[in-house]
Order: sequence, then structure tokens, then C-alpha cells
Amino acid sequence: MVNSKMYELGTHKSTIRTIFEFGRKRAAEMGEDSVFDFSLGNPNVPTPDFIRDTAIDILKNGVPSEVHGYTVAPGKPEAREAVARSINKRFGINYSGKNIFFTAGAAAAITISFKALCEEGDEFITFAPFFPEYRCFVESVGGKLVVVPARPVDWQIDFEAFESLLTPHTKAVIVNSPNNPSGAIYSEETITRLAKILSAKEKEYGHPIFIISDEPYRELDYNGFTVPYIPKYYHNTLVCYSYSKSFSLAGERIGYIVVPDEVADFGEVFGAIAGAARVLTHVNAPSLWQLVISRTAERPSDISTYVKNGKLLYDGLKAAGFTCVQPQGAFYLFPKALEEDDYAFCERAKKYGLLLVPGTDFGCPGYFRAAYCIKTETIERSLPLFQQLAEEYR
Amino acid sequence: MVNSKMYELGTHKSTIRTIFEFGRKRAAEMGEDSVFDFSLGNPNVPTPDFIRDTAIDILKNGVPSEVHGYTVAPGKPEAREAVARSINKRFGINYSGKNIFFTAGAAAAITISFKALCEEGDEFITFAPFFPEYRCFVESVGGKLVVVPARPVDWQIDFEAFESLLTPHTKAVIVNSPNNPSGAIYSEETITRLAKILSAKEKEYGHPIFIISDEPYRELDYNGFTVPYIPKYYHNTLVCYSYSKSFSLAGERIGYIVVPDEVADFGEVFGAIAGAARVLTHVNAPSLWQLVISRTAERPSDISTYVKNGKLLYDGLKAAGFTCVQPQGAFYLFPKALEEDDYAFCERAKKYGLLLVPGTDFGCPGYFRAAYCIKTETIERSLPLFQQLAEEYR
Repeated sequence: MVNSKMYELGTHKSTIRTIFEFGRKRAAEMGEDSVFDFSLGNPNVPTPDFIRDTAIDILKNGVPSEVHGYTVAPGKPEAREAVARSINKRFGINYSGKNIFFTAGAAAAITISFKALCEEGDEFITFAPFFPEYRCFVESVGGKLVVVPARPVDWQIDFEAFESLLTPHTKAVIVNSPNNPSGAIYSEETITRLAKILSAKEKEYGHPIFIISDEPYRELDYNGFTVPYIPKYYHNTLVCYSYSKSFSLAGERIGYIVVPDEVADFGEVFGAIAGAARVLTHVNAPSLWQLVISRTAERPSDISTYVKNGKLLYDGLKAAGFTCVQPQGAFYLFPKALEEDDYAFCERAKKYGLLLVPGTDFGCPGYFRAAYCIKTETIERSLPLFQQLAEEYR
Repeated sequence: MVNSKMYELGTHKSTIRTIFEFGRKRAAEMGEDSVFDFSLGNPNVPTPDFIRDTAIDILKNGVPSEVHGYTVAPGKPEAREAVARSINKRFGINYSGKNIFFTAGAAAAITISFKALCEEGDEFITFAPFFPEYRCFVESVGGKLVVVPARPVDWQIDFEAFESLLTPHTKAVIVNSPNNPSGAIYSEETITRLAKILSAKEKEYGHPIFIISDEPYRELDYNGFTVPYIPKYYHNTLVCYSYSKSFSLAGERIGYIVVPDEVADFGEVFGAIAGAARVLTHVNAPSLWQLVISRTAERPSDISTYVKNGKLLYDGLKAAGFTCVQPQGAFYLFPKALEEDDYAFCERAKKYGLLLVPGTDFGCPGYFRAAYCIKTETIERSLPLFQQLAEEYR
């Protein structure tokens, strides 16, 4: 009666959902203070005041039909220009509004890119650990997701494994740096080497290979690490950006795709993106938020809470005996579980009210993800519990 | 290099786009006053003040993470409840929040419904004249669009033709009343007869046949006509609603799907809708607008401008000698062209600056669409030009 694949995708209870329900049950029985929810990637830094003030100003003083009417599919010209200017200023590039296609957040941006590019038999490569929705999105447009095994020592790229997985069917490589779930940032060295390999393979195969750079965490870089702007290193790059984390606007669905002039054929790629947005029924990105971004694109993100939380949790877990790479960005730690079976480990953590996500969900068994976009005080209270959990394994 | 179908869908210049460009060129050469643009379905009534005031109040006094954070996929519970209450009050039904799935407007609502239901070989029936994106959306989910020829005498359903096109492959029937482009409203008699036929065919074929009721123009009914609420007449109905026209919020992308308890299997249908929304990357409908609707769902639309414009244009065209069904709703007239070739007719109208859309684009050759969601004064000034145009054919 219904499409069984859609039913399965709509009703399969994810690990995070199951954890969430456990947390609600425990909170109801033992109180909110007994739950330490490290499972969700919801930004907890409030939306900046300048965003709220700008939105109110537009609502008060804008012409309603211009504020709330349809926009052309790629977005309002002034919003596209503002984003292009902000990128140019920051990275010394020379974009104009025509290089920007507004989307309803990064999930739409990457899936529109997949659908625009995917032809029959195409493969999309990503690197473990990876955001699990990649599989769902790539397969929904008829592509095959190919996963390069992780490099746990620093969560950079295992280039040997990567090269062995490139084939003439490779259409694109999905990069997510700062990374969910590892918190790692790909270094300039990593990006340079990646670009060199792909350029050689483009020549060898005689067709373009794209990098789709999924950048919802771009602004969240710290501890001395910065995120290289990939179009400066590799010509066939599409940048998928979101204001979900940088301005804490996750529910408003606002972001964009950058299509540089340097891609193999700008007109073809941009046209296919417009077609993909159309059939995925993203008529236009929400118009009020396009206008807000047109006035705030150059404003900085407030990442101080994530820096503080990241240090607190990292130091605490190290002191408790966990093995973990220092966070470089985003708001995740991805430590080694204290037993081989990461599901069993996360199950054991639940006894203490510690809600963690098994690494297997991100294509990386034996690890777990702890999202630290939560109250600093919750992290402080959790540290003795991580200690007790670690004691169990001594 | 890119998906050629997406490229085609993203770059094919639609008739309306070509007309729009002609209009901009003429305006640049001869002034804005020389252009009478009846081609676009953009609402021109300003967004109501109560919408703006509610949005400002939420921005000023809401907790940012609750206003702008991710919502669960079907929408915020309070928004779903508010919509259910407003429907119950108006139509004497008994929905609760669980029957409502918020979407980014009606385009998303119908396409999510198509994708949720479509299995291999499925057919979706609609009635000419019809919104041309139906073909694109139905085919994009792998379905086949079957078109029932028009019934120009009153734009109701040609039931004989309809019955001959029902097959065991029929998955759903798309109803759009008030209709774009005809402005007609399906009468209670039409809906009753449609329901009866479908109920009989469900029994005959041994599987459900759905009505997908595309209702962006529901609130725009006038001249004594009202829009029957189809779930009261037929059990397997999904209602796809939008605030684009009723509250002039087309650019903000906010609407919903109603899944009544009475559908063949509520859990299956609702689950498949959730899966379809997920792979079409409609993570959640924009959160601020969900909250605005949670407080304004019961407020009325202001349709007085459309009533006035509709009467003015209808009377003017009748006086000029056009054959036309009186408008019942939406903001479109769909008169007979004055020559058989509607493209040639619309081309001739351009000489006067009258921008009209050929009926062929809506599956109905020999007619044209005139959208009257424009300034009343523009319509007034256009009437002598319609007279002159008609003179050419005498």
C-alpha cells in the first residue's frame, strides 16, 4: 500500500532515538539531574542577539511581500551577494552572488548536490567515522556510498585505503571537517594531498571527481586549529554550508551551496543543482532568513562555550583513563570505548545516566561519541561518573 | 558529468519565465505602466499584521533554543495540536496533533505524499487543467501521471473520462480545489460522486486508492461557493495545506499534511510520510513559523482584494466578449482564447503588454490563465486593452 522503503526509513528507531527515550524515562523516574545526555548534536549556545534584532527589524520595517514572498530558487540577490562578499573577505577569493545557491540547511545542500551529480552506477566516497545520514541520502538518489576505514590515531585520512577505493565510478568525495563525530579538522597537509590524488585520478579516468565539503561546523574550530577553505586547494569543490550551528538556527533550515567558477562546467553543475532542488521540492530557502543572512553574513559565531566544554570534557576523560584525540572543532569527542563492543560499553554507561552514542553508528566500532553542546555544569557533574564507569574496567 | 535529467529540469526555461523576461524588457523600454503582468501566482495581499506581531513577540520573548532549535520531524506538538483544533472547530472533525505532519509548504506536502505512497508501476490521476509541477513531482518519485481531460463548461470532473482511466495501478487521485488555473471549486456533488466511484474501485481492485487534496487555495473561496472538506466524504484522503496564499507566506515554506485516523493504515501511511520527508531532506518545517501557526491557526484570511479583483476582471472580460466561467475561488480566471492556438493568442496579447499564460501549459489547449493577484488599478487600466485585443478578432 505504501512504499516499503519509505516506511522503513520513517519508522526505524535509531540508536539516538532509543537513547533519548531511555533518558526521558530515567528523568521521569529519578529526576532530570540523573540524566547526562551526551547523545544529541543540538547547539546549546543561544542564537546571537544580532540575529534576533535583525529579524525583528526586517519584520517591523520590511515590505511584507518582499520579506515573505517567493524568492527565485537560488535565493535573493542581496543575500547571495552578501554571502559571496563574506567568503571573499575571509579567504581572499573572488565569488559573486551567482556562485551561491541558498538551501534549507546543509542536509538539503548535500542531498541536492548528490542528486545533481549522480548518474547510474556512481559512487560517493566518505571517510569513517561519518554522519550516518550520508548513507540514506546517497542511496536515495541512486548512488553507492563507499566508506574509507578510519585512521584513529588522529582522524585524518588513511590515504592508502582511500586510493585503493577510487574507481572510474567515483563521482565525488564527501569531506566533513570539522568532523561529526570525531571533532577532528583536516589539516592543510591532508587537504593538499587529497587534492593532488584527485587531480591525478581525474586525468587518469578522464572525468571530473568532485569534493562535496559538508561544512555545518566550519565556524567551530579552536585549540589553534583552523579549517582550510577547500576550493582554494581543489577546483571541483562544492561547499555545503549551514547556519544551524554557527548561528544556532538549526530549526529554521538555512544554508547554501557554493559553486565556484572553477568547477568543470559551472553552467552544467549550477543547472543540475537547480533541477535537484526543484524535484526535492525545496522551492526556495525560507525568505525571512535569507534576508537576515544578507545583513549578518560577516558576523562572527560565539564558540566560547564549546571551547570551554571541550576542554573540560577532554581533560576529565583523560584523567579517568580514556584514550581520546584532543578536540579541534565541532562539539564532539570520540574516545575509545573501554571494551571492544561499543554497544555493550554504552549500555553500561546508561546505569550512570551517561547517554553516549556507539561508534558503530558512525562506521567506527570500538569508539563512542560524546556531544558536549550541553550545559557546562552537566559536564562537571558527569566527570565523577565517567571515573566510576572507568573503574568498572580496571 | 552531471545528472542530465536534473540539468534539464533546472535549466529548461518555462513559459512563465519567458513571459517574465519579456515583461522586464518591455518595462525597461516603455516603463512599468506598460506591463500588465497576469502571469504570476504570487499573493499580493500583504501578510496580516497579526502574523508579523506574533513573529516579533516570539522572537522577543521566546527562549532562543526553543524558537530556533530542531523540532521533531512532524513538527512541534503545540503547533500540531493548534492546527488539529482549528480543523475540528471548523469542520466538526476529531483530529489530534498526531494527525498533522508539518511540511515546508504544499509543494513539499504533495511530493512527500507521492513519495510515501508510490510503488513501482503506480499511477497518479489528475484532472486538466492542472498545476504543471504535478508531472515533474510525480515522475521524480517514479510514478506515472495520468490526466483526465477537462470539462470546460464548469471545470468540474468529466466522470466518464475519469472512470475509463482508473486501473488497478491507480494509487491516488490528485484534487486541487479551488483550482489553479481554472479558479473552480469542486462542488459537494462532485466530491460525493468522486468518493463513491473510488470506494467501489477500492473494493473491485482490493487495495486502497487515495485522494491527495492539494489545498493551497482553500481559504480563497467566494461568490457563494465553499470548499467541501474531503476527509468527511472519503476515508483515504491526505490533505496537503499551505499558508503561502492564506497568510501570504509563500517564501517562508510552511504548511502541513493531514493524515486522518480513517486512512487504510494510519501507522503505515504516517511512517512512510516521515521516511519520504527524511530522504527529500525536509528535516523539519521552519521552526519560527511553526510557532507562529501554533498561535494563529484559527485566524481568518483576508480575501477581499481577490473577491474585488476577480469580479472586476471577470466582468471586464465578459464585456469584451470573452467566454469564461465565473471565478469561485483562488485568484485565477481561465477564459477561452480568441483563437484555437493559445500560444499565438498569448503572443498577440503581448503587443498590448498583457502577460497571459497559455492553457496548454496546464494541459488545456485553447484557454489562457490570468492571475488577478495584482493591483486593482492595474486590472482597471488593462480592461481597454483586452477590449482592443478582442477587436482584432472581430
